[in-house]
Amino acid sequence: MQIDHGAPPPELPAVDDFMINPGKSDINGPTAAASPVEEFLKRLYQDCRQLNDGAVATYIPELAKANPDWFGICLVTCTGSVYEIGDSQQPFTIQSISKPFVYGMALEDEGRAKVLEKVGVEPTGDAFNSISLDPGTGRPRNPMINAGAIATAGLIAGKSPATRLKRIMETFSTYAGRDLSLDNEVYGSESETGHRNRAIGYMLRNFGILTENPTPTVELYFEQCSISVTCRDLGIMAATLANRGVNPVTGKQALRGEYVESVLSVMGSCGMYDYAGEWIYRIGMPAKSGVAGGVIAVLPGHVGIGVFSPRLDSRGNSVRGIAVCNELSRHLDLHMFNRPSVGKSALRLKTSAAELNSSRVRTSQESAVLREFGDNIQIYRLQGNLVFATAEHIVRTVMEHMSKLEFLLLDFKQVLTINESACRLFCQLLLTLRSLGKEILFVRAVPHPLLRRYLKAKLGSMFDTAYRSFEDNDLALEWCEDRLLESRSAALLSDWTVEREAYEAFRGFNSSEIAEAASLLERRNFPPGEVLVNIGDKADHLYLLARGRVSVVLPRENGERKRLATMSAGMAFGELALLDRAPRSAMIVADTEVACDLLSLEAIAGLRARHPGIVIKLLENLALGLCGMLRKATRELAVLD
Amino acid sequence: MQIDHGAPPPELPAVDDFMINPGKSDINGPTAAASPVEEFLKRLYQDCRQLNDGAVATYIPELAKANPDWFGICLVTCTGSVYEIGDSQQPFTIQSISKPFVYGMALEDEGRAKVLEKVGVEPTGDAFNSISLDPGTGRPRNPMINAGAIATAGLIAGKSPATRLKRIMETFSTYAGRDLSLDNEVYGSESETGHRNRAIGYMLRNFGILTENPTPTVELYFEQCSISVTCRDLGIMAATLANRGVNPVTGKQALRGEYVESVLSVMGSCGMYDYAGEWIYRIGMPAKSGVAGGVIAVLPGHVGIGVFSPRLDSRGNSVRGIAVCNELSRHLDLHMFNRPSVGKSALRLKTSAAELNSSRVRTSQESAVLREFGDNIQIYRLQGNLVFATAEHIVRTVMEHMSKLEFLLLDFKQVLTINESACRLFCQLLLTLRSLGKEILFVRAVPHPLLRRYLKAKLGSMFDTAYRSFEDNDLALEWCEDRLLESRSAALLSDWTVEREAYEAFRGFNSSEIAEAASLLERRNFPPGEVLVNIGDKADHLYLLARGRVSVVLPRENGERKRLATMSAGMAFGELALLDRAPRSAMIVADTEVACDLLSLEAIAGLRARHPGIVIKLLENLALGLCGMLRKATRELAVLD
Repeated sequence: MQIDHGAPPPELPAVDDFMINPGKSDINGPTAAASPVEEFLKRLYQDCRQLNDGAVATYIPELAKANPDWFGICLVTCTGSVYEIGDSQQPFTIQSISKPFVYGMALEDEGRAKVLEKVGVEPTGDAFNSISLDPGTGRPRNPMINAGAIATAGLIAGKSPATRLKRIMETFSTYAGRDLSLDNEVYGSESETGHRNRAIGYMLRNFGILTENPTPTVELYFEQCSISVTCRDLGIMAATLANRGVNPVTGKQALRGEYVESVLSVMGSCGMYDYAGEWIYRIGMPAKSGVAGGVIAVLPGHVGIGVFSPRLDSRGNSVRGIAVCNELSRHLDLHMFNRPSVGKSALRLKTSAAELNSSRVRTSQESAVLREFGDNIQIYRLQGNLVFATAEHIVRTVMEHMSKLEFLLLDFKQVLTINESACRLFCQLLLTLRSLGKEILFVRAVPHPLLRRYLKAKLGSMFDTAYRSFEDNDLALEWCEDRLLESRSAALLSDWTVEREAYEAFRGFNSSEIAEAASLLERRNFPPGEVLVNIGDKADHLYLLARGRVSVVLPRENGERKRLATMSAGMAFGELALLDRAPRSAMIVADTEVACDLLSLEAIAGLRARHPGIVIKLLENLALGLCGMLRKATRELAVLD
Repeated sequence: MQIDHGAPPPELPAVDDFMINPGKSDINGPTAAASPVEEFLKRLYQDCRQLNDGAVATYIPELAKANPDWFGICLVTCTGSVYEIGDSQQPFTIQSISKPFVYGMALEDEGRAKVLEKVGVEPTGDAFNSISLDPGTGRPRNPMINAGAIATAGLIAGKSPATRLKRIMETFSTYAGRDLSLDNEVYGSESETGHRNRAIGYMLRNFGILTENPTPTVELYFEQCSISVTCRDLGIMAATLANRGVNPVTGKQALRGEYVESVLSVMGSCGMYDYAGEWIYRIGMPAKSGVAGGVIAVLPGHVGIGVFSPRLDSRGNSVRGIAVCNELSRHLDLHMFNRPSVGKSALRLKTSAAELNSSRVRTSQESAVLREFGDNIQIYRLQGNLVFATAEHIVRTVMEHMSKLEFLLLDFKQVLTINESACRLFCQLLLTLRSLGKEILFVRAVPHPLLRRYLKAKLGSMFDTAYRSFEDNDLALEWCEDRLLESRSAALLSDWTVEREAYEAFRGFNSSEIAEAASLLERRNFPPGEVLVNIGDKADHLYLLARGRVSVVLPRENGERKRLATMSAGMAFGELALLDRAPRSAMIVADTEVACDLLSLEAIAGLRARHPGIVIKLLENLALGLCGMLRKATRELAVLD
């Protein structure tokens, strides 16, 4: 193993140099509507273009034809942003950068254990073309050296050499998001001069690492190295590895997520030949280079990088490629060991039914109970990526607020991903809560099927009763509120019939006023599901609910209905449009068998002249109802804001 | 370098084995109120306790006295949760686990460049006690082998050996969060038998890597190895490295954040001796072991792990320590290359002033303008960790919605951390927006001083005019709304005096009704800052604002006031308490010179008898105002929910 003493190559500033430097602006001046990332890449491209050290590879004659000045950079995020500059669309051959991708295919084809039997995962500290077989067994040390890559190529499934090549081409094309092709000139040149690799093939055959005639496998290796790519392709391929195997531009899976860590691990420990330790120290990303001048680097979960510049240093790595990766790592803070804590980032909101309630409009008696005991219904809104560290923070917070807890609502609406360790914590939490007689509700968790699958597998026969799943957070909260109210003996009015003197709108009326008002009411009955009021209807009645429940809803584009409020017997509705005389802005639907008393605008106009005192009391009662709703909305805004 | 062929040691299940297995429950049954993580650790502890392979180290006689059955596990998150089980409080000596921590001190004392001159960062593939000096220069290959650690100890600043030891003890104590001490028996035993390390010391002196008598440095190395720690200490020390150098339990900084990546890099590439490649492949965390049986592992941003079990395998690593790390990595998904995409996680909410408005109550004319042009004020609420990948997603989203943009509000309230690359993107975004004549507002960004510092450094003289910072998001939004309204020639009423016939409460009044009502008003003037209404006051007046602006505010615990609404001339206030006769629930404060007309409850009672038609119109107007506020609140709830 060669150690480079001169610390960093002279063209790369030491890492310590990177400080905010007011004297030197590396921020570009304004360019109309150019993206900030493009501006940064432009500057980086100009800077690194100055580097003219190194030489184009000549050991494969066809490679020597490359223009040494070609230079492209492509940066791709896991959300699918592609930034490219320079000769980012110039084709060249992928060469050794094919190794990790073919290794991923071997893992999918044969599984980890079988692959590890044939190829190790220890760095050699040797140069790229070293043979590095284990003296006893002939197992190549790792899949990033040629011997290991040829052994890996031998693991690719397929009946014929043509089928195997076709599979490789298809997989690489999925990584790149476009149909790739072979550069036949380079392949011919590789094949013609690849005697050392043929020797390796026969050594592998000798040790039984390859079990058949090595020639087709060595040819397959030459072919995989001769696949023609661009710098843009490399950036997207790298981002696919950063994005757990899913191409972030096309959304297609190129590698099963569980194998991504293995591919990145061999890149991390063996990807840059004898530069591995310093590469991780300085750049801090798994990477792979190829002798045609390509380099990829991957920050998992963040970005993939592709660089292309054919001039190589003595280790066979692209000079500008290394410089660009170094600058990107420093300026964009991409070192994999320089990461902020994620723990608190997944708890979006923690509140309770004392502060936030369902759209069910409650009576003042019910509201008082919810105000007093609402803390027993705890609402956790989760977000982002649920992994061990973020789920632990949530679960611990729940455990710290256990004493009052009766109902736990976990709302997954804003969750992006959930992994198995997070499922494990929620499963154990469910068991603990149930053993204490507490309920746990999984709300809007359906888009994360792993959670349900995990709980079903672990809970067995208990699953059906223990797993409470709600697709609507409002209904989940109402369900908890109803149970809390029942257990606190608060009368639930939903199924009662209310006498007219008990109407909230008639509060403060004396008996003759009630009789007068009652004489103007028109009783109507509606079956469940009936629409009482439609959007755009003329607002000509105030509704007083005598029996059952109605909901104010807005139709959504997807055909569902968003509930704005649900009223029970005794309450009034339809008053807003009555006040501003605007057409109805929402639908009102009967949730149950409903009996209503309608008070028409004309009747109110008549009362105005004959019994203004009744109208005043009616308006005061309606305004009071509005006050209550406004106070609830203001309280909830404060919680959510 | 030795390659282990037998793939995983037999006691460790292959990684592929880890699937959901409904037949075998590894979830514990309910234990009252035990944390889910504790339940998991309990099970893991029981499982790994079965492993009795390996032997206690004997090469330092004092170490041979350890009880081979000692076994402790400690898991610590970056948010400061500490989970421990077994002999987690049993003291033992830190041994080689001291190496990365002393390396961190050397980096702080001497800087990266100087340290790299003395000690390399390449893995050797050799055993822990190999000498591994570069044949030409004598530079040790890396700081995790003894030679490199002794060279590193030679870099620790301090006038005397005692001072240097004291500094090491203090730093280690900060990492652990308690005062650590030296185990003098072990130190004596180390010193007595440490001839090989003395030889290394003299070799280093020979090459000039150590520049003075090597004996005090070698003794310091023996001392650093003899510091007594517990498994709990190791867990917290590891979590401190995971948490960018800040002890997550005490909040104290043990290592400057910029050096954490370097310490973790040498652990990642050289921490597990000749097991490095396979360690990263299987466990996927930077780690370090010691011959007394300790192991630490670090997942940056997530967790730190400490394990203690004295039985070692042939490589000198704790058998149970490796098994525990392997199980934790598999079951808690801790492999550093198995991470979900973070990109979209930092954009909490994207909305505009067409949907969400300030607490400034607007006239219907103003509201119509905001409804029509509000999209030109775009509101981005950010959250979590702003790094390149998350900031890029935000900046790109801004760029994609540029055509209408006039004002961009970036709200940093929920941001946990921001790094320099995110600052860079926001700085470039600011320049781009300004060049297009658009405004960018940084809201509630003060807790992130790096942003301001970065912008100040990069923008130079432009900073004072370009950096608009608001501590209050409501005021920031009002500022944008005001500018938008002005530019659209919508009359801003704030400084006008309104005649009584223009009061919103008098809408629909005929001239005699106005005269009648006006005769009952009592004009009052208030200087700016005067409190018109206090919390708890009896609600006995309705206020009609003739000139100036008033705000409804709630005092906060920290002495600040939260604004609920601001009214301009022509509007009424104080109506809520008037309707429900409750004491005032908020303060009302004059923002400017204010003139008000007060209408008393008695006057209204009088009107009720004499001119009920006036009271009906008044109530209708007040209820209409409530409707408007309720509609605004409902719209905003839908946006925020």
